[in-house]
Amino acid sequence: MKIHYFDYASARPLYPQVAEEISSYFLKGFGNPSSIHKKGREAHARLEEAREFLLDTIKGGEEGKIVFTSGATESNNLAILGYCNSLIKKGEKKKRHLITSAIEHVSVYNVFKYLEKNGFEVTYLPVDKDGFVKLHALEEVVKEETALISIMYANQEVGTIQPVKEISKIASEYNIPFHTDAAAAFGRVKIHVENDGIQMMTLSSNDVYGPQGIGALYYRDHISFEPLFQGGPQEFKKRPGTEALPLIMGFKKAVEITIKNFEKETDRLKALRDKLFKGLTEIPASFINGHPTKRVPDNVNVRFNYIEGEAMLLHLENHGILAATGSACTSDSLQASRVLTSMGIPHEEAHGSLQLTLGKDTTEEDVTHLLEVLPPIVEQLRRMSPLTPEAFFEN
Amino acid sequence: MKIHYFDYASARPLYPQVAEEISSYFLKGFGNPSSIHKKGREAHARLEEAREFLLDTIKGGEEGKIVFTSGATESNNLAILGYCNSLIKKGEKKKRHLITSAIEHVSVYNVFKYLEKNGFEVTYLPVDKDGFVKLHALEEVVKEETALISIMYANQEVGTIQPVKEISKIASEYNIPFHTDAAAAFGRVKIHVENDGIQMMTLSSNDVYGPQGIGALYYRDHISFEPLFQGGPQEFKKRPGTEALPLIMGFKKAVEITIKNFEKETDRLKALRDKLFKGLTEIPASFINGHPTKRVPDNVNVRFNYIEGEAMLLHLENHGILAATGSACTSDSLQASRVLTSMGIPHEEAHGSLQLTLGKDTTEEDVTHLLEVLPPIVEQLRRMSPLTPEAFFEN
Repeated sequence: MKIHYFDYASARPLYPQVAEEISSYFLKGFGNPSSIHKKGREAHARLEEAREFLLDTIKGGEEGKIVFTSGATESNNLAILGYCNSLIKKGEKKKRHLITSAIEHVSVYNVFKYLEKNGFEVTYLPVDKDGFVKLHALEEVVKEETALISIMYANQEVGTIQPVKEISKIASEYNIPFHTDAAAAFGRVKIHVENDGIQMMTLSSNDVYGPQGIGALYYRDHISFEPLFQGGPQEFKKRPGTEALPLIMGFKKAVEITIKNFEKETDRLKALRDKLFKGLTEIPASFINGHPTKRVPDNVNVRFNYIEGEAMLLHLENHGILAATGSACTSDSLQASRVLTSMGIPHEEAHGSLQLTLGKDTTEEDVTHLLEVLPPIVEQLRRMSPLTPEAFFEN
Repeated sequence: MKIHYFDYASARPLYPQVAEEISSYFLKGFGNPSSIHKKGREAHARLEEAREFLLDTIKGGEEGKIVFTSGATESNNLAILGYCNSLIKKGEKKKRHLITSAIEHVSVYNVFKYLEKNGFEVTYLPVDKDGFVKLHALEEVVKEETALISIMYANQEVGTIQPVKEISKIASEYNIPFHTDAAAAFGRVKIHVENDGIQMMTLSSNDVYGPQGIGALYYRDHISFEPLFQGGPQEFKKRPGTEALPLIMGFKKAVEITIKNFEKETDRLKALRDKLFKGLTEIPASFINGHPTKRVPDNVNVRFNYIEGEAMLLHLENHGILAATGSACTSDSLQASRVLTSMGIPHEEAHGSLQLTLGKDTTEEDVTHLLEVLPPIVEQLRRMSPLTPEAFFEN
């Protein structure tokens, strides 16, 4: 059966050129950037070029630095946990308040939950029905004791793009560093770190069709943070361990391709997304999760009353369609999506959500197939569901 | 100019089949092991197969588990720092003594230095002139307060294979968990975790010609340790973040090939190694670092009095030979190797050391070339060196 893949958010196939680049480094371009011989010096030069290229891409400024990590989860931890550990190490006792949002990725959210158990006070900012952080709530809670503000650039489940500039403006008025998890935004939104007022930013490689197992943290040089673990002096002593150069070169190549195709691909994805929204909302009692347009171009999230998302996924899979109900990172959990419930969607409605992420290989035909197949599935499930009011089918 | 690569310890090229395996997963076999759809379930099945395969390879036993990490540095930290953090979390105040050796890799050594600053007492066991940990010293320092013993399986600089069974026997008498960093041993020595009495073990992928950016930690299920950072529930909640499945599959394939070729390749490397030792020790005032035979088959380390290792490396590079003087992981440091000085070698002699690691593509011709080229380089450097006694050339 032909597979129609609508779950790019959970894992992305690489561009063939990226896989070739990685293979060539794995096979012959290898070298340890810390070795003093020719191969080591070459590896070191490539590593620094990749760093500069990424900095230039995000307009990281004179003061900007890039540290390579194993992925977005580690980058988020390095930024937030590393920064808080640095405060503790410095003996800073007053700056013990942290601000984040209620809809962060689990690798941000759980860091704050951990810090809460370890002497920090954390405010989880509420979001509105479209998933935007409430700026007035931020203004109300920010205080002299606030040590860090961390709010995602775009949400991985509903695609909402946050008002990053407005957030960073408030942060800068209080001289508070601002970290943003840009894993779901990078490559989909034009990020200008200096204009956006960002001090630390998490980047994911696989989210731009680069290899899994690599990511980066952007930071400004005056920000101090402790490494998460100990070892050699690599990566400005912020992240020990031999750099995985082949993966870094693949990450770089993936970003190059993403930038080159940006305008065209964004338009293509937006057209597919909007076609999906139009078709899906023709199904009765269906609602868009998140803002219809102020979202990344590849994210579609719609809920259907009276049904279970997981049952819908199983039926879709019988038609070759692979999709999700929430973040794959937490999909072993049976709880309703924290992101959706934070947006004010009741648990039972959140459970009926379908999350589709489009990608480089998504075609018009995939979209047409989904729009053909889904309406009867929704109707069938509703007819079977004890949650559907009897009056529903009478209209 | 043809390159003669003698620095496999710092970076290894992959087997072509391993690079192909990784590419195929990057391009089409992708999937997030946490996704509930078909691709996710397939990814999950592959992941668990890889785990089982590794466990079986090292004879990890019924109780054994494997957690995938970003590499040996992270695995060492997860084992040691994670274990100590678990003691702290449990409120265990008595078990605050740790034992390691003086010649550990920097990713073990610096974890203990960090723990020393954070409330733990650490004993760094001395080694003898060949690099073997002194067992009677271990017996003297082990006490009821000892929480953990961590001693490497084989040393990455001088190749010495430690008396792991004897160490674990002492550890078990006191009911102390025993961790071993097997990065430099795995694939070179037959490891049998249960017979060796190991409770936690660090494995590196690139050291068996697998991809950089992935590694593993073996542990027995009754050992508790805290994750190094926070996020999703992956890897038994020990290591958050989406698993880099393509790299894990490459790691697995590399281990398969290594096992298949083990006997033949070990014999081939030993023959090359012994030829190098024979030829190099014919140079006057040269000495083998480490034991001549109780070492991994691919490691050669020889020192030459009166010269600087780095000058020797530059001259060798002019003849296409790439080698090292010490661990690449600390090569930005101008200090003499801690491993060599711990073996009682004076600083000035340690500086004159040449570390050669052989690998899958090392040929008889590489060895012959090195043995032709090196003696005149050593003689030339000695003639230029103010350290050479005048009487030296008169004999």
